[in-house]
Amino acid sequence: MTGRCGPRPGGRSARVQAAVHEAVRALQSEGSRLELTVPAIAARAGVTPSTIYRRWGDLGQLLSDVALDRLRPDSAPSDTGSFRGDMEAWLAQYIDDMASDFGRALLRDLLSSPTALNAGTCADALKAQFDQICARAEARGEDVPTSTVLMDHIFAPLVFRLLFSTDSVDMTTAETLLNRLYPVATPSDAAPPPRG
Amino acid sequence: MTGRCGPRPGGRSARVQAAVHEAVRALQSEGSRLELTVPAIAARAGVTPSTIYRRWGDLGQLLSDVALDRLRPDSAPSDTGSFRGDMEAWLAQYIDDMASDFGRALLRDLLSSPTALNAGTCADALKAQFDQICARAEARGEDVPTSTVLMDHIFAPLVFRLLFSTDSVDMTTAETLLNRLYPVATPSDAAPPPRG
Repeated sequence: MTGRCGPRPGGRSARVQAAVHEAVRALQSEGSRLELTVPAIAARAGVTPSTIYRRWGDLGQLLSDVALDRLRPDSAPSDTGSFRGDMEAWLAQYIDDMASDFGRALLRDLLSSPTALNAGTCADALKAQFDQICARAEARGEDVPTSTVLMDHIFAPLVFRLLFSTDSVDMTTAETLLNRLYPVATPSDAAPPPRG
Repeated sequence: MTGRCGPRPGGRSARVQAAVHEAVRALQSEGSRLELTVPAIAARAGVTPSTIYRRWGDLGQLLSDVALDRLRPDSAPSDTGSFRGDMEAWLAQYIDDMASDFGRALLRDLLSSPTALNAGTCADALKAQFDQICARAEARGEDVPTSTVLMDHIFAPLVFRLLFSTDSVDMTTAETLLNRLYPVATPSDAAPPPRG
């Protein structure tokens, strides 16, 4: 309600946030999940547990905030010269980052908030990347699905496998999804991609 | 490793599990998430907190176990006489159960375990329902996708919206997904459904 969208950079609030996020990342890299408690995080960050409860509500919200910071894309999607190439490059990078146990745990942390707000922010940022890939493809004159169709039929099934199975997820998985939507075939037998 | 798949029915272990699950459900229905702590659950169930930590590891695993119990389908999918009708009936029931704040919180609880085992058990049980729907459709002579395609392109995007957005999810959402996969159209312009 103050018209600001987060802690003032350099202020006490921002320093507390940075210290607490850093403490979470440090404890995550060192220990077991069972040692990742609010008192342990507070001690490492040099704040009181009540500071954490007051600001984040509970451990789930804090872990979700830290995960969101790590999951936001930090660069524009590669431009390989074709829609198919751009999607393959994007998917290879995503799988490289997220298909590990660590990446899957980050996704679960993102969802450990009592609301879907952080998850929505993350999904919106990734959808914006598909928008960029689709806009570039259209500028090249390629006939491509909308980013909504890509989210529904490429990204959602990929994330579903990362969250709801222990099976390995690799580029074969991604290529299978991509081929269903955007078949590699001669023009005469290619089904049109669904349009959202 | 004992050859048993869970606590012996009626034994002390089964009674503790039932009491703790019941305590979680009672506290969830009464209070805020912040009051759902291991000490509060233990007090309500008449066990010690260390019993809960020893058996479940942490609160996330316990909440995931309770959610899994609630999320397992408890009846066979309705037989409406057609694949389309069966899918619509299944989706209407699922959305009725899961699109509320309570249903979405259950999904997040399912994923609050440090592993994807419970989520995988839940996904397998739902996929078995699609297998039933597909087997009935094939017996009727209908040309239908595999249950894998249904999981990837109908179920995954639906769950993705429940977890990664605060948007409402209703039968319009489900019909849009179903129509992309299985268009309602004249035979001459219907795209073949993708086959898994």
